[in-house]
Amino acid sequence: MIDKLIEKMDNLKNPSLLGLDTIFEYLPEKMTKGINTLEDAAKVIKEFNFKLIDKLAPIVACVKIQAACYEMLGVAGMQVYKNTLDYARKNGMYSIADVKRNDIGSTAGFYSKAYLGKIKIGDKEYTPFEGDFATINGYLGEDGLIPFIDDCKKYDKGIFVLVKTSNPSSSQIQNLEVKGVEYKTVYENMAGLLNKLGESTRGKYGYSDVGAVVGATHPNEAEILRNTFKNIFFLVPGYGAQGGTAKDLKCFFDKDKHGAIINNSRGLICAYKMDKYKGMEFDKACYAAAVDMREELYKSIYQGV
Amino acid sequence: MIDKLIEKMDNLKNPSLLGLDTIFEYLPEKMTKGINTLEDAAKVIKEFNFKLIDKLAPIVACVKIQAACYEMLGVAGMQVYKNTLDYARKNGMYSIADVKRNDIGSTAGFYSKAYLGKIKIGDKEYTPFEGDFATINGYLGEDGLIPFIDDCKKYDKGIFVLVKTSNPSSSQIQNLEVKGVEYKTVYENMAGLLNKLGESTRGKYGYSDVGAVVGATHPNEAEILRNTFKNIFFLVPGYGAQGGTAKDLKCFFDKDKHGAIINNSRGLICAYKMDKYKGMEFDKACYAAAVDMREELYKSIYQGV
Repeated sequence: MIDKLIEKMDNLKNPSLLGLDTIFEYLPEKMTKGINTLEDAAKVIKEFNFKLIDKLAPIVACVKIQAACYEMLGVAGMQVYKNTLDYARKNGMYSIADVKRNDIGSTAGFYSKAYLGKIKIGDKEYTPFEGDFATINGYLGEDGLIPFIDDCKKYDKGIFVLVKTSNPSSSQIQNLEVKGVEYKTVYENMAGLLNKLGESTRGKYGYSDVGAVVGATHPNEAEILRNTFKNIFFLVPGYGAQGGTAKDLKCFFDKDKHGAIINNSRGLICAYKMDKYKGMEFDKACYAAAVDMREELYKSIYQGV
Repeated sequence: MIDKLIEKMDNLKNPSLLGLDTIFEYLPEKMTKGINTLEDAAKVIKEFNFKLIDKLAPIVACVKIQAACYEMLGVAGMQVYKNTLDYARKNGMYSIADVKRNDIGSTAGFYSKAYLGKIKIGDKEYTPFEGDFATINGYLGEDGLIPFIDDCKKYDKGIFVLVKTSNPSSSQIQNLEVKGVEYKTVYENMAGLLNKLGESTRGKYGYSDVGAVVGATHPNEAEILRNTFKNIFFLVPGYGAQGGTAKDLKCFFDKDKHGAIINNSRGLICAYKMDKYKGMEFDKACYAAAVDMREELYKSIYQGV
């Protein structure tokens, strides 16, 4: 799966993705006025997402859809989660189900069926919330990861496992220094595990379908990871609102300008609230911000400016 | 919240809980025959769960509902997830939303609203999937935990954070030995973090609303944790089908026989398939197995047999 994503990013000359972390408060007031049920809130969020996908599908390769935003709207929110994944696919965008799911072996397999694999009921098969990729938390070790990787192989999918997250307190566990093993820290050992598990899924650009989440806010750790693990593709949150800059991102990429995809959520979906794009409809503002982000990243990553 | 759970367990003289990890294949054939849609599968799982709750509410304090089993049935499954949580509450049972959610600060807050807190839409407030407790993965450090803990304080709820999980490969990350910090391993440092964060939520039995998941399959680690962290209550999976025995469980409890609640899923909900309970209706078999489990644990924990 990772080869397809890389090629689409190359074709669009765009290393960024659209993060649909859509919450009710992000929507223009004219869409939310008078609404006070979960069902109606979910309905307008669906409209909002669909318009953004319509507008951005020609220039952005992928959407990342943050499950928490939809789960907090209950069953109606989960319906829109599914609808948004399906609508992205229909419009030719790849999708990342940002669910950070995790559990022990057999139960991890159930989560995998929900987002990547297939569940059989009687003589029929379903993938209830189908993404091209899903995000996973690997704290439980390999038997919580293998069920997902098996589905990646079987159904041409990919995963991104939390390695070094973008938040300030990520160092509390992830940067603990360890002894008696190959790598120096917890996060490097997590990456080492993914490197081993992903070996049999490597594609023609050298990257495997078992990727890592590495925050834009931690360029030092990213540089170590990029140099040590040439075969792990990075999903990079934390650009923009969380403080990561285009300059920080160069070290996430390899010499062929591959190796990472950069998420932007609020900076794109709330662009219409920014001075720079004021007065524009939300979808047009999002498009303009996505073009600006593409140019900024392109300069920094491809031209080293 | 933890005080209420402890008192209910004391009153019922039962340190176990009913794990509703209900999947389609666990149901009696007469319930599943001819079904081939997610919606119909969800419907019979709901019936199955409700009958088990009807039967076991008088003798078991709490249910743990494994989200993966319901998510893989899509939107219809999430509806039954909600229905089962609500039905447990209606019948006086406490509930653990076993969701193992995790994300960075603000997004962790969204997950918390879904399961423990409240989301405001217009002038109305909702908790879409309300449990009394939720399970959480703490790999992201404290700013992924604090939003949940804030809701615990505000709405009288609790969480159980993964510390030492029951699966065989849990040692790969969790048992890494660390240096330069207070505790020797990753899992002990995770517990140390929970201990600190939970301090202001301690109840009259000494336990805080910030508990830990510690697998029955790892009594050595449990003993270290029990001796080091007197204020952390344990949620204990892995008894029965995964290999944990009643004898292994003694070290999870304190001298007052408090400090842990033991999960059993397959051993209870699939009891009707076991030789011992053969020929009984599934709900009656589950009841009989729950009584047997209570006796076994009671002997081992209270009487040291």
